[in-house]
Amino acid sequence: MKDTGMRKFFEPESIMVIGASETLGKAGNMIIYNILSNGYEGRIFPVNHTADQIMGVKCYPSVEDVPTVPDLTLVAVPSAASLDAISQCAAKGAKALVMVNAGFAEVSESGARLQDALLRAARDAKIRIMGPNTSGITSTPWKFMASIYPLGHVKRGRLSCIAQTGNFATITMKWILTGENFGVCRVAGLGNRIDVDESELIDYFGDDKETGAILLYLEEIKNGRKFIEAARRVSKIKPVVAMKSGRTSAGSRAAISHTASLAANDRIVDSAFRQAGVVRIDGYKNMVNIGKVLSMQPVPRGNRVAIMSPSGAMGVAAADACERSGLKVAQLSDRTYELLNKVFPSFLKAGNPIDMWGAPNFEVYETCLRRVLEDDGVDIVISILHLIKGTARGKGMLKVEDLGAIPELLKEFPDKMLIAEIAGEKDFYEEAKKYLEERSVPVFLPVEPGIEAAAYAYRCRQYMSRPD
Amino acid sequence: MKDTGMRKFFEPESIMVIGASETLGKAGNMIIYNILSNGYEGRIFPVNHTADQIMGVKCYPSVEDVPTVPDLTLVAVPSAASLDAISQCAAKGAKALVMVNAGFAEVSESGARLQDALLRAARDAKIRIMGPNTSGITSTPWKFMASIYPLGHVKRGRLSCIAQTGNFATITMKWILTGENFGVCRVAGLGNRIDVDESELIDYFGDDKETGAILLYLEEIKNGRKFIEAARRVSKIKPVVAMKSGRTSAGSRAAISHTASLAANDRIVDSAFRQAGVVRIDGYKNMVNIGKVLSMQPVPRGNRVAIMSPSGAMGVAAADACERSGLKVAQLSDRTYELLNKVFPSFLKAGNPIDMWGAPNFEVYETCLRRVLEDDGVDIVISILHLIKGTARGKGMLKVEDLGAIPELLKEFPDKMLIAEIAGEKDFYEEAKKYLEERSVPVFLPVEPGIEAAAYAYRCRQYMSRPD
Repeated sequence: MKDTGMRKFFEPESIMVIGASETLGKAGNMIIYNILSNGYEGRIFPVNHTADQIMGVKCYPSVEDVPTVPDLTLVAVPSAASLDAISQCAAKGAKALVMVNAGFAEVSESGARLQDALLRAARDAKIRIMGPNTSGITSTPWKFMASIYPLGHVKRGRLSCIAQTGNFATITMKWILTGENFGVCRVAGLGNRIDVDESELIDYFGDDKETGAILLYLEEIKNGRKFIEAARRVSKIKPVVAMKSGRTSAGSRAAISHTASLAANDRIVDSAFRQAGVVRIDGYKNMVNIGKVLSMQPVPRGNRVAIMSPSGAMGVAAADACERSGLKVAQLSDRTYELLNKVFPSFLKAGNPIDMWGAPNFEVYETCLRRVLEDDGVDIVISILHLIKGTARGKGMLKVEDLGAIPELLKEFPDKMLIAEIAGEKDFYEEAKKYLEERSVPVFLPVEPGIEAAAYAYRCRQYMSRPD
Repeated sequence: MKDTGMRKFFEPESIMVIGASETLGKAGNMIIYNILSNGYEGRIFPVNHTADQIMGVKCYPSVEDVPTVPDLTLVAVPSAASLDAISQCAAKGAKALVMVNAGFAEVSESGARLQDALLRAARDAKIRIMGPNTSGITSTPWKFMASIYPLGHVKRGRLSCIAQTGNFATITMKWILTGENFGVCRVAGLGNRIDVDESELIDYFGDDKETGAILLYLEEIKNGRKFIEAARRVSKIKPVVAMKSGRTSAGSRAAISHTASLAANDRIVDSAFRQAGVVRIDGYKNMVNIGKVLSMQPVPRGNRVAIMSPSGAMGVAAADACERSGLKVAQLSDRTYELLNKVFPSFLKAGNPIDMWGAPNFEVYETCLRRVLEDDGVDIVISILHLIKGTARGKGMLKVEDLGAIPELLKEFPDKMLIAEIAGEKDFYEEAKKYLEERSVPVFLPVEPGIEAAAYAYRCRQYMSRPD
């Protein structure tokens, strides 16, 4: 793997923090807190004029005083002081900077000029910059996270993210860390993106063994040709999905005012994504959902879906959702129907959607699921489960541990995707979601969100297996 | 309000349960449990050959022995015994039956013939039937719920529902009761719908003072002309929204096999809904969401939206979602911008979406919200809140009670709709959702679901204010 200069950002042996602060809540304080919270094993050099130490980490009065050339430097000084910071880094020999400070092109004309000057100074000194106006950087395999937002420990996962904004990524990350059960691998906030851009990162993440899938949030593409070239190569190796905001005219206007960039014509974007093999995600909710599915499940080998539903009507709604999002309701084999009908009650015949009637005991469910997974005509199983606790049914009460049969079964079918959707009691939903997701079975509320996420994953497969 | 015979179903003075059972989990047992759990104030007459009492309610060995003519009769005997039950009811003079038993047209040809025979017998005796193959009936203003599913107490609300299925309605209700914070008014499960149909119920709910909005789940429309006539009248008085499954060919095939009915051509349905003034809902998730919004908020007077967002990017995504679902990002007045800029930090200018920057203290948020609500050009506010607890910011920690300012403010602007979307920590999300929803402010996760629900509500307004 050739080093394009990105390694220093994601696997730094040492980190310098210019503008480190003792004041709780300040960016230069949060960065130290986050680095420490993630168990970073390299050396940390906070730069602060007056403090001896911050959270127990020895401080240095100036960049000059730092006893080594740090691999990575976080810059948290006010924008007015950032040119000075660049000079000091240049003198020091520091080559990789993440600038979390704001007050540049996103604010004013003079800020834009300052930003240009920053870039020139950095280029002269062969310094690479991420940002400015970014909220930070994360690299969980390296036990390292430096955000200006109080995220604390970030769970490790296989999904790497590139976001052309700051707050957005961290707010979303806070939700994922507390409301979902998947982790991330590398996260880069591009902010105003004066230097390091999405194309370079796609290239880097493409060759990164820790990265299983790549998720982008963009408001515009910086360099179309470079983007297509990078993504076209990488999207054959691993899934690349992107949410590109500013689809509508109102969205575009909003995007212009907030990252000081012209939102590109949306059709050009669609066409670029198609050429690049990037699956375009509609909507914020879908972005979180596809991130979860790509983190937990294999990319499906095809689009043939078996739907197991506790109600005929939910099965119908699921069939609708499948067809509308590009999946097919599978034709199960005669053998499968025969085996299913053996355990079905007399008043029902197995079809697809498979109407799992009222509430069978879990052994019956398990048997049916096995039959469905064994069917060669099925690539994806949408399992809608209706869970109630504490009600006598069949052989006894359903406990969350009973659901462990699902991930156990999946181990025997490693190329099949299963999405669980859980209806019923909220408490049990939450408990089952945690239990199943910790075992890599993604859980959603019925009916559409999980199916749409599976459909996006299938579209990744189409790009991964394209001939050229 | 003329009595079309529906009153007996929703406001019965007495209820007979044929097939009442002592066995926990059986339909005839659950019905008694549910009736008792909801504080029904009328008389209950369980019919059971052998039991003296069920859950303390005195039983009668036969229909003949019941000492009065009950307003409503629940029939929970096996399908084979249902013709007998009809005869007994005819002899007794009972006129309103809810048949929760299954084993009719949804199962077999002979079941279909039995069902036809049932209907003939009922017609001869001037008996009205809801079902068969329904899961029950609910009428919270009457403190009455009779479902075969262990729902227990159902919260009272203003939304009345009509569902052409059984399990589906109860599964959804269980989720609403445990995962959402709104209640329902009347709920009718139509099941195989041999007699009482959606048109009749729309008519009844249209004149029902307790019903604020009507939600339908249909797989087909029984009688197009009758449906259009009823809904056209009622949709001018109150919102009527419907999810009609079987949109796609796979969905249609699934619908056919499960309610033994031909799913109608989807375009004809669209056209019928338009003529009828019924807003068609896409997807199950949206159905629950619009139910919540119609339960808690006024139907918006227009489609001009102000978006308050904690991140520029979320604002952009929200603007996209608004335009795509038929809402408009409002042009705020110069006066509003001026007032907002007074409290905005120097590095930001107020626009719409209104970028509420990092995390203002809640007083600032409140001031901005007031300015936005005061703007005559705003009909709907999408307030995306980024909540973290326990972090020092501004004047102190944000507590869930601080959010009480939102419903308080809304009292001054009764014709404006507000949808809250909460990002950040899951725990605080759950706490804030409960707190706000108990005060009639609907809460969603960012970004699309709340906006789409608001858009459906706006489309109801368009039908309510149409000229003819």
